[in-house]
Parts: sequence; structure tokens; C-alpha cells
Amino acid sequence: MNKITETLLGLVSDWSGVFDGAFNIREDGGCAGRQSSEHIKIENKTDGPGLVIHVLPEAQGETVYIPACVTHGNIDDLVYNDFYIADGADVTIVAGCGVHTDNEEEARHNGIHRFYVGKGAHVLYKEKHIGTGKGTGLKKIDPVTRIELEEGAVMEMDTTQIRGVDSTVRKTGALLAARSKLIIHERLMTGGSETAKTDFEVALQGEDAGVDLISRSVARDESHQEYRSIIRGNNRCTGHSECDAILVGHGTVSATPELYAGHIDAALIHEAAIGKIAGEQILKLKTLGLTEEEAEEKIIEGFLKG
Amino acid sequence: MNKITETLLGLVSDWSGVFDGAFNIREDGGCAGRQSSEHIKIENKTDGPGLVIHVLPEAQGETVYIPACVTHGNIDDLVYNDFYIADGADVTIVAGCGVHTDNEEEARHNGIHRFYVGKGAHVLYKEKHIGTGKGTGLKKIDPVTRIELEEGAVMEMDTTQIRGVDSTVRKTGALLAARSKLIIHERLMTGGSETAKTDFEVALQGEDAGVDLISRSVARDESHQEYRSIIRGNNRCTGHSECDAILVGHGTVSATPELYAGHIDAALIHEAAIGKIAGEQILKLKTLGLTEEEAEEKIIEGFLKG
Repeated sequence: MNKITETLLGLVSDWSGVFDGAFNIREDGGCAGRQSSEHIKIENKTDGPGLVIHVLPEAQGETVYIPACVTHGNIDDLVYNDFYIADGADVTIVAGCGVHTDNEEEARHNGIHRFYVGKGAHVLYKEKHIGTGKGTGLKKIDPVTRIELEEGAVMEMDTTQIRGVDSTVRKTGALLAARSKLIIHERLMTGGSETAKTDFEVALQGEDAGVDLISRSVARDESHQEYRSIIRGNNRCTGHSECDAILVGHGTVSATPELYAGHIDAALIHEAAIGKIAGEQILKLKTLGLTEEEAEEKIIEGFLKG
Repeated sequence: MNKITETLLGLVSDWSGVFDGAFNIREDGGCAGRQSSEHIKIENKTDGPGLVIHVLPEAQGETVYIPACVTHGNIDDLVYNDFYIADGADVTIVAGCGVHTDNEEEARHNGIHRFYVGKGAHVLYKEKHIGTGKGTGLKKIDPVTRIELEEGAVMEMDTTQIRGVDSTVRKTGALLAARSKLIIHERLMTGGSETAKTDFEVALQGEDAGVDLISRSVARDESHQEYRSIIRGNNRCTGHSECDAILVGHGTVSATPELYAGHIDAALIHEAAIGKIAGEQILKLKTLGLTEEEAEEKIIEGFLKG
């Protein structure tokens, strides 16, 4: 594993030289290390690039790391990872991704992740994206996430992209069976002339399915973001979505959240707000001794954490 | 003027046998009565069907009525009405529309209304739509509204459609100059197998322009509604939109409100909620002696008024 991969791993998956439990490290399209554990089995896909990961019912509170790194230009990495989470299992999946280029060549990662989450299972899915390197080559990460939740399953998806990625198109689709819950927290920050497109499509199919979709983003400089979501309430269900964006400099944002209620007992709510940081907030922190820039950073930090 | 027109006028424009001030009554594509006033001049368009209405600066607190009625099937009425509101004028425009058919033939009204609102002028635009008659012919009303507000102009648009219209496609577009304000209240109720599509597009172009867009709707029986809006903040401006829908029976609703912030000082907010009437609300009114149906009616009435 090269130095850049080590640095990227630290940034996206809390790597400190070792992973505790099951892991697979993808480096420039190859495998730089893999380990299955007693309850989490990682195998190569037989019909294309990527992994098949089986989480057994005995897995309770365990973690699997599957970071992917692109460490130089002229790489266009495409990978399909399929997760089969057994009924009743409880697992944390850490799927960070870093792309790096030091020259004028493009570095791209395109991960297609499919989750089949069994009855009553619980998944915490953490996905952190970053771009590094001083090259002029574009850094791109285009994740596709497909989620199928069986009865009573719960999935929390925590997805973060903090600068450095020139262009991203993020598509997430989910199909929810009875009493299953999906909680998504998205945090995005773009700067320079970066662009980010986000697209969520959630079908609340089973009775008492529920989704909570929270997107917080910051668009700095000349960057542009487009947010789209559709929540389809096809049964007795609850859906809530919330997208808040902060503008800094000449950043621009478009937000298009759609709600579709196709059942009398579908209860759907949406809120959105786009604007710059309120002057009073900056002023308050300045009176505490911070410079304008420090105050802005502090507020943005708090906003993205929230 | 025929009996059906008289009835429709009562329903859509508070007609009680006479209009006070300027008016034009459109009946089945013809003119059933017209009167200009000292400060409001109504003329025929020279390049197509419809009217050119000039509201002079002297008009202060005056009203012009321009109702349109389709009183039988096999009518497909298309009309272009252009309003020129002088700087500083203050006018109320009542533009109700009723369609009626007693047989299997379609009755349709398609009104294209364009408003050029001068500096500092104030317009209250009231548009009430209804369908009547026991015919199986479809009753359709497809209004198109184009609004241009000059500096400091204020326009309030109050648009209501309470049942009886089998199909409606409502398009409203607005372009706002500096310090102008647009306030839209939409109230919609559909039943049976009616469909209603609503489409708002508001461009906040000038500094300190503002829009407040409130849509309240009730979808009963098997009816279907689609709401779309886009608010573009292209300058220092404020935009607020809110769409609330109540489902009754098997009604279905899709809401897609878009916000686009293209300027650091654009402050845009949106809220949406779709659901059925809360059980507690019904229960509360039932303890006061109302039947379930009466309680439901009462709640819907209050909701649409709000």
C-alpha cells in the first residue's frame, strides 16, 4: 500500500495503521489488503469488479471497513459492492473514498453499492469522500447506492464530502418494507468551481415504513450544488426531509425536493432553507474575539455537524 | 345573458345583478356586456380574441370585473387579456371563470392573462374557478398568468378552484423588479376523478424583490393533484413558499417545490406537508356535537380559508 493511500485512509476511515475486524482496502482498482472475520465474510464478485460481503446473523455490533483510494491520475475506477445483511444482524460499514492526483490527469472513483438488509437488522453506513493533491486533473467521485430494507430493518446512512472533489453525482435509491426505517444524514461542502449533484429516491412501500432525510450543505466560491429528492408514500408511512444550504461567496444552490402521497395514511413533510450566514451570528462571535473568517468557519463547522 | 351565466357570475364574481364600475362579461366566447369607467378603459384586442385593459394612474381603490363563462358543451374558449396598470395605480381585478355542461360535450375555458404592473402600483387579482352542470362532458379550465412587476409594485393573487372542474392545468409565471412584492394564495379542492396541475415560476430579478407563495389544497375521492413551483433568487431577495395538502379518501398529491439561490443574498425558504386530517381534530369536533362528516367539512373549510 502506498503513502498516499495511507494518508487518504486516515482522512476517510479513521485508519491508524490497522483495522480492527473485517476489511478490504481498494487501491487504484486493486486489492491492497483484505481480512474476513468470523461473522463477516468478504469475497470477490464473480461477475465483475468488486466485493460480495455477507454479514452473518451472529454479527452484533461489529464493523467492516471497505475504503477505496485512487492515488494518481489516469484512473477511472469502477466497483460493484454487494452487501447481504442477515436477519437480526447489527453492523457498521465504513466505506470512505479518497481520490488524489498530482498531475493533469483525471482521477475518478465510481462505487455502486447495493444493500440487502434482512428483517430486523441494523446497519450504520458511513461514507466519507475527499479529494486531495495539487494536480489540475479533475477529481471525481460518483457513488450509486441502492438500499432494500426488509421488514423492521433499520439503516442509518451518514454521508460526507468535505471539499477537494471537483465533480460528484450521488444517487441513492431505497425501497422500504413494513416497519423499516431509513435515516440519511448528508453533509456536503464545495468550493472553487466544484459541482455536486445529489439525488435521493425513497419508496415507502410497506406499512409504517419511515424515512428521515437530512441534507446540510455549504457552497463556497463559485461552486454549484443541485439537490433532488423524491419521497413516495405508497402506504401508511411517515416521510420527513429537510435540506438546508449555506451560501458563501458566489456559491449557488438549487433544491428540488418532491413529495408524493399515494395513500391516505401517508404523512409527508419537507422543509428547505437556503441563504448566507446571518450577520448577527458573525457579529456575536466577533465580540468573543474571533476574526470574521474564524467566526464563519466556526458557524459552518457547527452547521455541518448538526 | 343567459340564466346559466347569471348563476355562474354569482358563484365566481359576487354578481348580484349589477357590477359597480368597469366590467366585461364574456359568455361562450362572446361579449354579454361591457363598461369602461373614468379610470379603467376596456378595449378589444386587435390581434386576437380578448381584451386590453388600461388602468390609469388616477384609479385608486377601484375594481374591474372580467368574468368569463362557458354555459354549454362543445365550447373551447380561448382568450388573451392584457392588463396595463399605470405607475402608482391601485386596483382590484376580479376574474372569475365558470364552465358548465349539461350533455356529453366538453366545456373548456383557456384564459391567458398578462399583467404589466407599473412602478409602485398595487393590484389585488382575484380568480375563482368553478365547474357546474350534470353533463358527462369534461369541464376544463386552463389558465395561464404572466406577471411583470416594475420597481416597488405589489401584486396579490388570490386564486381558488372549488370542485366541479374535471381537469385543470394552471401556469403562473412572474418576473419581479427591485423592491416589488408578489403574494400568491392558491386554494384548490378536487373530488371524483378530477385532476389539477399547478405550476409556478417566479424570478426574483431585482434587488429586494420578494415572493410569498402559499398553496393549500384538498384532494378527495380518486382525484389527483400535482404541484410544482420554482423560485429563482437572482439578487438580494426573499422567497417563501409553503404547500400544504389534505388527503381525503383515495386522493393523491405530488408536490415538487424548487428553490434556486443564484446570489449570496438570496434567502429562500420552503415548507410542505401532505397528510390526512388528524384523528384528534375530528374527535374534538365530535365531542362538540358534530357528526364525523360535519367535523371533516368544518376542518377543510378552515384549512382552505387559512
